[in-house]
Amino acid sequence: MDRRVSRPYLTTRGLAPENQESPIHFLKEYTTSEPYLFKRNHFPYPPFTKTPGSVQISGDVLQPLFITFENLLRLPQKDIYFTLECAGNGRSFFEPGVYGEQWKNGAVSHGRWRGVPLRLLLEYTALKNTAKEIVFTGADSGKISEPFARSLPIKKALHEDTIIAFQYEGRPIPFKNGGPLRLIVPQWYGMASVKWLTNITVVDQEFEGRFQTEDYVYYPANEAEMPSFPVTTINVKSIIQKPQNYSILSPGSHYIQGLAWSGEGTIRSVQVSTDKGKTWSEAELGRTGNKYAWVPWRHLWKAEKPGEYTIYSIAKDSKGRQQPMTPFWNKKGYGYNAAAKHHIKIESI
Amino acid sequence: MDRRVSRPYLTTRGLAPENQESPIHFLKEYTTSEPYLFKRNHFPYPPFTKTPGSVQISGDVLQPLFITFENLLRLPQKDIYFTLECAGNGRSFFEPGVYGEQWKNGAVSHGRWRGVPLRLLLEYTALKNTAKEIVFTGADSGKISEPFARSLPIKKALHEDTIIAFQYEGRPIPFKNGGPLRLIVPQWYGMASVKWLTNITVVDQEFEGRFQTEDYVYYPANEAEMPSFPVTTINVKSIIQKPQNYSILSPGSHYIQGLAWSGEGTIRSVQVSTDKGKTWSEAELGRTGNKYAWVPWRHLWKAEKPGEYTIYSIAKDSKGRQQPMTPFWNKKGYGYNAAAKHHIKIESI
Repeated sequence: MDRRVSRPYLTTRGLAPENQESPIHFLKEYTTSEPYLFKRNHFPYPPFTKTPGSVQISGDVLQPLFITFENLLRLPQKDIYFTLECAGNGRSFFEPGVYGEQWKNGAVSHGRWRGVPLRLLLEYTALKNTAKEIVFTGADSGKISEPFARSLPIKKALHEDTIIAFQYEGRPIPFKNGGPLRLIVPQWYGMASVKWLTNITVVDQEFEGRFQTEDYVYYPANEAEMPSFPVTTINVKSIIQKPQNYSILSPGSHYIQGLAWSGEGTIRSVQVSTDKGKTWSEAELGRTGNKYAWVPWRHLWKAEKPGEYTIYSIAKDSKGRQQPMTPFWNKKGYGYNAAAKHHIKIESI
Repeated sequence: MDRRVSRPYLTTRGLAPENQESPIHFLKEYTTSEPYLFKRNHFPYPPFTKTPGSVQISGDVLQPLFITFENLLRLPQKDIYFTLECAGNGRSFFEPGVYGEQWKNGAVSHGRWRGVPLRLLLEYTALKNTAKEIVFTGADSGKISEPFARSLPIKKALHEDTIIAFQYEGRPIPFKNGGPLRLIVPQWYGMASVKWLTNITVVDQEFEGRFQTEDYVYYPANEAEMPSFPVTTINVKSIIQKPQNYSILSPGSHYIQGLAWSGEGTIRSVQVSTDKGKTWSEAELGRTGNKYAWVPWRHLWKAEKPGEYTIYSIAKDSKGRQQPMTPFWNKKGYGYNAAAKHHIKIESI
């Protein structure tokens, strides 16, 4: 590699608020380093004065708690390796097109988040019998809008791996990625991992905030046939990093490589086809150590014959889920996970 | 604008060689500043030792000339304000898809190039009667491939505004954009403006280099009906910068704004439709001072009624050319200039 070539940059999708996606096709590292973390905002960044890193737990609890950043750091901690994917990742691939940020494959990252299990704090505050959901509020809000807030069912909030994170990859969480404190909810799409966390409120009914009941809801094309339902768990998915879509390669052997992840269970296999789906081969899987981590995969393609090829990849997880050939189209464009499909030309120069 | 929001970055399309496009939808400036110049390479960057800034003129000339960078700077100079567009700009919009770098709208820039008219040098060397074309060779080449070279007809080479440029916007041409010396050929697509210029060779026949007769040729879908023909002049074109495609806006008045340019003549008008092409309005044109410059345009759209809209823009030039509604599909995806088309949703929040 020519040393004068730049490292790839984030791709800007919006500036007000800032929305940028990772150049994921060009990343070789297993872990997404800070400069390549995607940024997804609904609002302008909150003022620093509103994100001191302390959290208030109130509502239907027996013992309300206000905990400072310093005190939080004194509690038992754990590391979570997590593939954090925006629910809108891949939205630009839906046909017909869907309104909203036109993410390609780069609204996803993987790395180690360190924090305190939320369960520890909720064991201290205890929940009243009336508790039904727990609402997490961030410091970010619009001029006339409610702040960003999302709820979790009690069971998910008490999951041993739901943490209040204060580090990413051994360093303070970057402010633009939700630091100093960010809720991390493994297995769920990124909207659940509330950034700039300030308030945790235990409530006795279903939360009806805008980001719970209007956004982050799957609205099928025909709601008479299928009612809408909330966005929660990350769908099983693979993406192809290399070769890029519509690239031209010389005849010979080429690695097809990519990443695969699933919000439930773990990745069992990635199948690759280089003949438009007629025959499939099992890709070689890389590291699979951590249950919420993505899995790198590759397949050696002997492409001796010049011509035009359509290549696919399909991931399957340990819960028996697999990527569909066509995506589940929905009005707001969430949860895209159709088989990855690239057009490649083999040509002698 | 929140001061903490990053400036937009270039979008990476390839790293080996480096190909990056301008975040043109986010740029407000009339002139493309250095960090936002697109980069388009066929090969790795040439070694610095191969780009000393001197030029050799040889072949069918009466008086061959080797001119150093220092001596070139002593000759009469002129400024050219030029919209430099890659022939493949917009390739990703062709349907069916076309192989090659998947440029969106950002393989284009506008700014002031300063240099010595090539004509002055050719008046000195004089051309033999046998001279038919002039071949320009850059310092960039592949391991097994010929260097990048392109020819111009004598008439275009002698055009008063074809210059050997050594400055961009008052500073040395950035190395990655072809400095120290770059041929600048106004009106033609970017492949003619040879980067890292080292050799000018007057030849007595048609040049048949790879980048002349294989690449940068329009190959129609059916070559029996229409023969292939070379890529030369920039097509008339407009792009919409704002609002972005598939964006959601609140009811009210919004500016639709963009840029328009043409390789022949100058921009006469930009027509905008907000009702799928049924009715058209004349956009307000901005600066139109320089004949090879792009023209900013805008149109105030009163979008009070919530709903889904398709907006178009179509530029017309002083030579009577106008953007077609559908692009001229060709196998290598050059010269895309169909009417700009964005889908916009007006929605009360």
